Amino acid sequence: MTTYVSLSGGLDSTAALSLVRLTDVAAISFDYGQRHRRELGAAAAVAGHYSIEHRILDLRGLLHGSALLGDQEVPEGHYAEESMAATVVQGRNLLFASVAIASSTSPGDTLIVGVHAGDHPVYPDCRPDFWHHLAEVATAYEVDVRAPFLHQSKAEVVGWGSQLGAPLELTWSCYQGGDRHCGRCGTCVERAEAFHLAGVNDPTEYADPAYWKTATA
Amino acid sequence: MTTYVSLSGGLDSTAALSLVRLTDVAAISFDYGQRHRRELGAAAAVAGHYSIEHRILDLRGLLHGSALLGDQEVPEGHYAEESMAATVVQGRNLLFASVAIASSTSPGDTLIVGVHAGDHPVYPDCRPDFWHHLAEVATAYEVDVRAPFLHQSKAEVVGWGSQLGAPLELTWSCYQGGDRHCGRCGTCVERAEAFHLAGVNDPTEYADPAYWKTATA
Repeated sequence: MTTYVSLSGGLDSTAALSLVRLTDVAAISFDYGQRHRRELGAAAAVAGHYSIEHRILDLRGLLHGSALLGDQEVPEGHYAEESMAATVVQGRNLLFASVAIASSTSPGDTLIVGVHAGDHPVYPDCRPDFWHHLAEVATAYEVDVRAPFLHQSKAEVVGWGSQLGAPLELTWSCYQGGDRHCGRCGTCVERAEAFHLAGVNDPTEYADPAYWKTATA
Repeated sequence: MTTYVSLSGGLDSTAALSLVRLTDVAAISFDYGQRHRRELGAAAAVAGHYSIEHRILDLRGLLHGSALLGDQEVPEGHYAEESMAATVVQGRNLLFASVAIASSTSPGDTLIVGVHAGDHPVYPDCRPDFWHHLAEVATAYEVDVRAPFLHQSKAEVVGWGSQLGAPLELTWSCYQGGDRHCGRCGTCVERAEAFHLAGVNDPTEYADPAYWKTATA
């Protein structure tokens, strides 16, 4: 039996991976044409850190209509519902989970996803109801879907990852996908704030390191 | 608002399409490396009959491990659980629905699928519980998932299609994917039997037209 971890290369999925016993584990990442495909390199680095199998599956052309796909500008500011709505991708988590579930070859395989409570306001496909019903759907394929951080804050996720020795310094959050974390987009602000609230030293180099303190929730 | 119909090119999805008001309809078919990709031509013919938009989405490489993908022999005989298990494709209906839902661009779009009660014994992802939970999942994307034949037999599906003028003669069922319907695989047997039980003239040319009468349930 295999444990599949949906690994974006960000903090949450990397911390989720750090919870898993590292035998029969495969990390799965998705190239969906994201502007921040820089995260795929981060995912590879994290998988390399743990010496586990890593697959990048090509889903380009199947998703559309979001700032994350370059169709609009990535909004700056706090990860609050209104501005971040532009980063919602129709069908994204469902498609990712579907492809991971379709990869499963043995009854009783597990799929781990890193969604957390901070995602709930912006992303309908990160909410408990969504994952509850998707876990039921997955029983048809004898796959056990688990979202260990579903009810935890991003700061708690950082706390867990830090405590379990996850290589958080290898992760990538910024939606802009530049060379450095911009420090101004919603996910950069959320990242910096989470390290702060968790009391964990933030290893990230931000282009604008102070901006997150001024962004209001 | 658009109604998406997951159109395999078989009887069920074609009959489901015949239920739909033909404005703002798009038929979606999936190339997943199926042995019987002949069905994609049938889907195109059906969409052409109705003069509606038809997209064939390329999902090759995302599904695996089934007789339908050429990994094993397609079993002959009645559509009964034991022999037909080889035709189950892990994650198939979930992936198809996910991709269709990801195609949706307007809140309130609808996805119609043609699953029917005869699929339940063999395919876990055709059962009512699966579709109930998937419909709940899809609410996160404001897509209304409907399976109008979920509790109807294949014969009832043929009856509906016939009554509504669906071009059943254009449809393709055979899993062997030859030039003609083989008449011996599970889906050919089921097709011939459904026309018979519905009292509808079967327009299909089978290589072995009498076999279905001898196959036992």
